[in-house]
Amino acid sequence: MAINPYPLDKTLKKGRNSLQLTSIYNAIRKDLDKVEENLSLLSKNGLISAPQLLNHALKDKGKRIRPALTLLAGKVNNYNLDLLLPMATAVELLHIATLVHDDAVDGSRLRWGNPTVSSKWGKEKAIILGDYLFATSADLVSTTENVRVMRLFAQALMTISAGELRQNIAAYNVNITREEYYELITCKTASLFSMACETGAILGRSPVAGQAALKNYGTKMGIAFQIIDDILDLTGTEKDLGKPVGNDLMHGTLTLPVLIFREMFPGDSRIVEALENKGDGEFAKKAVEAVSGSVAIKEAYNIASQFCRQAAENLKELPGGPARAALESLSHFIIERTK
Amino acid sequence: MAINPYPLDKTLKKGRNSLQLTSIYNAIRKDLDKVEENLSLLSKNGLISAPQLLNHALKDKGKRIRPALTLLAGKVNNYNLDLLLPMATAVELLHIATLVHDDAVDGSRLRWGNPTVSSKWGKEKAIILGDYLFATSADLVSTTENVRVMRLFAQALMTISAGELRQNIAAYNVNITREEYYELITCKTASLFSMACETGAILGRSPVAGQAALKNYGTKMGIAFQIIDDILDLTGTEKDLGKPVGNDLMHGTLTLPVLIFREMFPGDSRIVEALENKGDGEFAKKAVEAVSGSVAIKEAYNIASQFCRQAAENLKELPGGPARAALESLSHFIIERTK
Repeated sequence: MAINPYPLDKTLKKGRNSLQLTSIYNAIRKDLDKVEENLSLLSKNGLISAPQLLNHALKDKGKRIRPALTLLAGKVNNYNLDLLLPMATAVELLHIATLVHDDAVDGSRLRWGNPTVSSKWGKEKAIILGDYLFATSADLVSTTENVRVMRLFAQALMTISAGELRQNIAAYNVNITREEYYELITCKTASLFSMACETGAILGRSPVAGQAALKNYGTKMGIAFQIIDDILDLTGTEKDLGKPVGNDLMHGTLTLPVLIFREMFPGDSRIVEALENKGDGEFAKKAVEAVSGSVAIKEAYNIASQFCRQAAENLKELPGGPARAALESLSHFIIERTK
Repeated sequence: MAINPYPLDKTLKKGRNSLQLTSIYNAIRKDLDKVEENLSLLSKNGLISAPQLLNHALKDKGKRIRPALTLLAGKVNNYNLDLLLPMATAVELLHIATLVHDDAVDGSRLRWGNPTVSSKWGKEKAIILGDYLFATSADLVSTTENVRVMRLFAQALMTISAGELRQNIAAYNVNITREEYYELITCKTASLFSMACETGAILGRSPVAGQAALKNYGTKMGIAFQIIDDILDLTGTEKDLGKPVGNDLMHGTLTLPVLIFREMFPGDSRIVEALENKGDGEFAKKAVEAVSGSVAIKEAYNIASQFCRQAAENLKELPGGPARAALESLSHFIIERTK
């Protein structure tokens, strides 16, 4: 019997942290380093009078999954680095800009273990810095001189901010449904994953079917990525997460594991109490314990695995090679990651 | 002796509020109405879950000078509304987006006599709504399918936000120089005026010399516009301004009339006291009285008039007609306006 590549049981994964991003990124390692270099060069731009703010926002290295997706999608057919490097840099920059604003909106103190721009320099500077980063990312995209790609980029930001607004309005609403949750994470997370892949495919001159396959791959990956993020927010450690556990519940955001828990245990009042006692860490902690110790976590993992499987299905459309293999590995990594 | 079209003395203008925007806009009236219609249609877009926020930001009608500049610049040569209407709408939308964020940064209560988005719904929603408006404006620009125009648009936002950051950092700094003031307003205001004109010229297929002339016209107009804005902030009425008098000083922003006053009366301590007593309305009021009752106002008007004259000089390069005539009238209006 073949080993299930998308383990449905979280306990199965504990021992096998075999998938390392560094090895998955092998096919694009040097080029991803160039993206890093491009990002660090931005604070040398004379326009910006506060390079320390920009440095701070850029140095907090995330997993760089989004630019990796652009490079890998672009490598499936005709790898043109002149177009793909600015695009991949722009995709990560757009992501960083949204994080700078998100942290200001949520009043978050920590991101990747470091103080956020808004907690260190105030919401005001975070607003302006985020705007500058948005503009810089759009400027980078314009160097591709590809109108379709520029349009997809603008539309992704429209979708992301519409999703953020929806999340902000839905906060502390205990009646949010699974459908609303999926819609929301498709807007706020999957749209960027999808755009990262589709623009890579377009600039890498994939045929139309390949572009559609990579776009769909990105969407499903983004949904799975966000579900896992939402699980880790409940089951992870502050050290791994680089921010407090239970952050989502503290901000009144109901995520998939919480929604599943609520469906499974309608008599359990701990979720409602956490929402009613807004900002009270003790109530949030009890709710986190309730959900993280329940079978809702396993069920949420199952669902994320299904999305990853659907993501990988799309790859069958593409020509084989190291780029496609890396995209497939990424679909496993996303489930297995612990931070 | 010919009448000086740029009166150097403010008292000269009091009696002749002859220049009305409505008559200046005659050449593009119907098309500017279409821009208005485009703006009001945006809140019908299904993406946005809080149309009342969007409506609120869009209904606060300003003077619509920026989209008028795009249309007029586009009308000088080959008036193509398919390209110019989305461009003009995007220019105004970008302006509105920056105002929504500026008001959140400054904590301003009123804009055009109405509560700001951030005072009505909180800074958080203002951040997200502004992002959505930025993205929507970029999406509109992409419909022109003109890469150069798209690039100028992104660069204008880079320059504006770099200027805002600089202003934020320079706040309450009593040692700011005139040169720094000019640099700052060139970034935060003139760059948008300049882009509004240059993109109009490009989309209206002006020859290269005409594009450069319109770009320079826009820059000088933007500088003059901001100087007058800064004068009116001291000499206007709350009713006309739609916001409190002395707003700039209250936020620690030293503007040209204040800088001139400081140079002329180095022994007068009222400016320094207003900055030292941050947020104390009484000290700010005394400083406003000091500057608004001084010859610094006349001198600032003189300087703004010079910039308007330089702006109008550029128009000589262009073919004559109603569009050029309206651009010239606008250069007078900017000085004469009282709100």
